[in-house]
Amino acid sequence: MPDRRNDKMKLGAFFHPTGNHIAAWLHSGSQIDAGTNFEHYAALAQTAEAAKFDLMFLADAVATRNGRLNALKRWPQYMAYFDPMVLLSGIAARTSRLGLVATAATSYNEPYHVARRYASLDHLSHGRAGWNAVTSSNHSESRNFGREEHLSHREKYERALEFLEVVKGLWDSWEDDAFRRDRTTAEYFDPAKLHPLNHKGAHFSVAGPLNVARPPQGHPIIAQAGGSDDFIDMAGRHADLIFTAQFDLESAQALYGKLAAAVKKHGRPAGSLKVMPGLNAIVGRTEKEAQEKHEHLSSLIHPDVGREVLSNDLGNVDLSGVPLDAPIPEEIVEEQLRFWLRFMKEATGKENPTLRETYRHYGSARGQRPLVGTASQIADEMERWFQGRGADGFLIHPATLPDGLEDICGLLIPELQNRGLFRTEYEGETLRENLGLPRPKNRYA
Amino acid sequence: MPDRRNDKMKLGAFFHPTGNHIAAWLHSGSQIDAGTNFEHYAALAQTAEAAKFDLMFLADAVATRNGRLNALKRWPQYMAYFDPMVLLSGIAARTSRLGLVATAATSYNEPYHVARRYASLDHLSHGRAGWNAVTSSNHSESRNFGREEHLSHREKYERALEFLEVVKGLWDSWEDDAFRRDRTTAEYFDPAKLHPLNHKGAHFSVAGPLNVARPPQGHPIIAQAGGSDDFIDMAGRHADLIFTAQFDLESAQALYGKLAAAVKKHGRPAGSLKVMPGLNAIVGRTEKEAQEKHEHLSSLIHPDVGREVLSNDLGNVDLSGVPLDAPIPEEIVEEQLRFWLRFMKEATGKENPTLRETYRHYGSARGQRPLVGTASQIADEMERWFQGRGADGFLIHPATLPDGLEDICGLLIPELQNRGLFRTEYEGETLRENLGLPRPKNRYA
Repeated sequence: MPDRRNDKMKLGAFFHPTGNHIAAWLHSGSQIDAGTNFEHYAALAQTAEAAKFDLMFLADAVATRNGRLNALKRWPQYMAYFDPMVLLSGIAARTSRLGLVATAATSYNEPYHVARRYASLDHLSHGRAGWNAVTSSNHSESRNFGREEHLSHREKYERALEFLEVVKGLWDSWEDDAFRRDRTTAEYFDPAKLHPLNHKGAHFSVAGPLNVARPPQGHPIIAQAGGSDDFIDMAGRHADLIFTAQFDLESAQALYGKLAAAVKKHGRPAGSLKVMPGLNAIVGRTEKEAQEKHEHLSSLIHPDVGREVLSNDLGNVDLSGVPLDAPIPEEIVEEQLRFWLRFMKEATGKENPTLRETYRHYGSARGQRPLVGTASQIADEMERWFQGRGADGFLIHPATLPDGLEDICGLLIPELQNRGLFRTEYEGETLRENLGLPRPKNRYA
Repeated sequence: MPDRRNDKMKLGAFFHPTGNHIAAWLHSGSQIDAGTNFEHYAALAQTAEAAKFDLMFLADAVATRNGRLNALKRWPQYMAYFDPMVLLSGIAARTSRLGLVATAATSYNEPYHVARRYASLDHLSHGRAGWNAVTSSNHSESRNFGREEHLSHREKYERALEFLEVVKGLWDSWEDDAFRRDRTTAEYFDPAKLHPLNHKGAHFSVAGPLNVARPPQGHPIIAQAGGSDDFIDMAGRHADLIFTAQFDLESAQALYGKLAAAVKKHGRPAGSLKVMPGLNAIVGRTEKEAQEKHEHLSSLIHPDVGREVLSNDLGNVDLSGVPLDAPIPEEIVEEQLRFWLRFMKEATGKENPTLRETYRHYGSARGQRPLVGTASQIADEMERWFQGRGADGFLIHPATLPDGLEDICGLLIPELQNRGLFRTEYEGETLRENLGLPRPKNRYA
């Protein structure tokens, strides 16, 4: 395996409302009204852009979260927040290089709408749009769209595959040089370079053409997230960027290898898919400072929220009868989820942790990779994953916003730049250029 | 009828790509790449805001236009342009007072998506969002959403009415003071002030609640356009703002009266619906300058486009066999549309106009109210309509952009201000405040 001495990492910043930590809003370094505060997000984006991040990312769901209201009122992430395309469009007007990536689920959208919005954002931002194409897995979303039952796993993937094909087809509706805009001949466009799609499939019937010119990137970046075999095959065919949640380098390398194989199987050149594991970094000027921030955040987790987060991830088990200072008994968890309870307990580093100790450690990063330390310590681990081909870069989830991002940009990014692992200036104008990905040819050209 | 000496007009600016005139893109005063040029729109919005316009408006369709490609290539309006919510969100980040209104049809959208996007834009813009809720009437749109046949007139209105009720209900999901954001008690929101909708109707089933806080305006402004009895009843119930296309004061007064009666019938206070007829103004420093601009624009209409525009409005009649310098024979038009051919011919002011003379005059404004002259001449006519209660204001369609808007802002707006008919400073912060409309109470509060 050749080393990557001349490669640079690709970095994304994941802006959860108030930050990734479940107690972030209770921390004095977080913007408490993030869900309705555009200036907060515009400033975050400008901070990330000044640090030369490839992209910012916004998650999305088309429903409030499900759960016990007594816990949700103390853990309000994703209860009330901006539509991500509205927010990214505003941010596009205040930035010039940062990639702008947001989720739109294939389950409750129409491909014509999605193709059009991301193409429009790509024009507005001069080539910085990215679409995180996910299949929805939230039951409460289906009930906002007239469906009592969610689609099956198989149906969701079939629909997603067809959805992606339609969207890419619509983005090719106009050839790049279709618009002559010639006042002397009174010809605005060349009709031979306008192509209806006439798609008729199992899930969608879309005539086209799209009423937006071909995007500056050809196709906006397609990001995806997942881990199943269906997912890996779809990603190998369609994705430019993968967001993963890996706990250790070995499993990251395994997934990286599978994705590379899927890319090859679908006839795409090596390197045409970038893999970014999530990274929940709390960085301090000293290790002690970072640990203290992490412990302070953990101490802010309200017991109702601690029980809620563990209960959610243990199959909605009822933890209301377990005292805070007693361990969680294995027998109350369904047998197939006990491995996960053991994982949670191990994460605390203690022999037989109490309920409180368990949620304080597990709750702070959940399924993500938690790193707490100095810039040098965190950069060491990032370098190991990057050189070891477990990652092409990372999607960094600041624990609190804006201050967690400011720490990362002020301490960690300069360390990565000093090591030659990260850019000091943008290589290109578009997100695709900065990610080092080729511009797709138009299928009709 | 009391006079309106102390009232002010409400003014909107309708930004068609390159301008309203069908030959606008061929004029040197238009921005030829408007469909992909965000900076062009941001500058237009700033010009309108400096002139104290209440709002800007963007029309929309979810399809390219239908027609003969040989004409469309010379008349490219609405063939390729921005998604309006993406564009308005970018503009929101560059403006501070201008109202931001765009169309979203009820036919091919879901109410949860629409409620969420306009609520998000309302937060991003601090209370400046407006939704033009129309029923789609474009057959080519249905074919982008898996439907070969369009909905019937009756079905469209029933669906639209239910859609409006669901959207308004979702906007009330959170009470205005639901968010306590209290770090001392660890309570972000009050669960008693969060309300699911649990709507189950003939067309939609939407559980809610909306995942966006209540909009700054309570409800973003609801605009509508139309003229049928079904429309008038729906507008009387739900609309804040009506865009109309009237040819003379008498018909404008008749519609104004019907709308006022519909408002009263639905128990709403008088004045809670503002009526804005369209106004296609070409203003010059002298009458001659304005006429010359109008004639120059008319001369730029390509004969293929002239035939296309007349053919469209005469029921797709084939005009290819009619010589440019001969009159259009009545007998080739279907009997029920011959009154319209007579209207087109009368508009030219000539006895027996040729095909070319007909499209040069009719094509420049189509169904709208064309006014060509000095600021004083145009202001006279606007004042007559305003004082005569045919209008609460006007939706001005500049013929070319940006220069047509610059003429209106530089010449016409100061004339209206000098007469005391238009504001010299915004009265409020939100679009609703500037339109003089009350903020709706939350149904649950």
